[in-house]
Amino acid sequence: MTDPVEPGTVRPGGRTARVRAAVLRAAGDALAEGGIAQLDLADVARRADVGKTTVYRRWGTVANLVTDLLLDMAEQSLPRADTGTLLGDLTANAQLVQRTLTDQRQGALFKAIIAAATGDTRTAQALRRFYDTRINEWAPCVEQAVARGELPADTDPQEVIRAVSAPLYYRFLVTGEDLDNAAADRAANAAVAAARAGTYRRNTTNASHT
Amino acid sequence: MTDPVEPGTVRPGGRTARVRAAVLRAAGDALAEGGIAQLDLADVARRADVGKTTVYRRWGTVANLVTDLLLDMAEQSLPRADTGTLLGDLTANAQLVQRTLTDQRQGALFKAIIAAATGDTRTAQALRRFYDTRINEWAPCVEQAVARGELPADTDPQEVIRAVSAPLYYRFLVTGEDLDNAAADRAANAAVAAARAGTYRRNTTNASHT
Repeated sequence: MTDPVEPGTVRPGGRTARVRAAVLRAAGDALAEGGIAQLDLADVARRADVGKTTVYRRWGTVANLVTDLLLDMAEQSLPRADTGTLLGDLTANAQLVQRTLTDQRQGALFKAIIAAATGDTRTAQALRRFYDTRINEWAPCVEQAVARGELPADTDPQEVIRAVSAPLYYRFLVTGEDLDNAAADRAANAAVAAARAGTYRRNTTNASHT
Repeated sequence: MTDPVEPGTVRPGGRTARVRAAVLRAAGDALAEGGIAQLDLADVARRADVGKTTVYRRWGTVANLVTDLLLDMAEQSLPRADTGTLLGDLTANAQLVQRTLTDQRQGALFKAIIAAATGDTRTAQALRRFYDTRINEWAPCVEQAVARGELPADTDPQEVIRAVSAPLYYRFLVTGEDLDNAAADRAANAAVAAARAGTYRRNTTNASHT
């Protein structure tokens, strides 16, 4: 393969794209192994077998590198399910989250990035954009369920998708219980039950559960 | 006040208890301001106006200090509500979590400790014990609801209490949406709806929502 005509031009499979892929892979490995405190641009360049000046010129700071890593993770992440039922779709979503968080490298990587985001506004913004992308990818599952008459018409799709992830991330980050298949199934079931009861209707803070 | 007869003897209001309170207050302040990376025993001693050797002899390491801080936070935390209805009790729980996480000092402190727990097993264990204490404090609200016939008999009380906190911590740590009163009310409503539908029954991973 030849170099791009213009410096910085990204072509699929071109040198710029290959350098980016190698650097982001190395950055992810370094984060998963040592957390944000150990992340160092020179070390990432060495791991990626890329010139240090290339990494410094293109990313410049750890915050830029983590932001680009999250952008790439959003771009690479899997498309939503379309099983024909809300419970089927949300169970697929919960199982994807569960598999990601229990994967050794991915789990460590998410822990490192979420921990970094607690202390750095730019990382927190990049993390939020990553989840916005993922939540918007899955929101049509809820929109289709509304169209099928499974849920109230004014259900907030994003809130339902967040409700699936929340108990899994809570275990993962806070209480440390096992993230097993039962936890994933339960997360999907809980989101469906609450959505059907009207909990995620827009502008309705107290659905009738009294 | 006089010193305890035996070194290390804890008496309510005694010198040992006062030293501990001052040191843990200072440790919490330091964590809220700078995170775990900035936590330093000598700095904590200075902030607490306590001798450095006292702090080193009694706590020795940052991990011991954070563990003791979490133990104290569990001891000091508020008792559960008893409003007479499950939704009333769980709304009180959600509002307490929401107030804690949105309090400037407490929110920063929880972020710092949770971030530290992602990279340190002892801190993660201490954090888990803290939440075990809190969840067990509130579990009787669910047990009473079962006794009143509001929920299925084999409902897992701990799972219901975790379900109230999960969406609030997910927003707090991951997606960054506002932690407002509506979010707290929604968390309580969702937990009640899912519990009523049988989602949190023991040994039942797929309640009938199909």
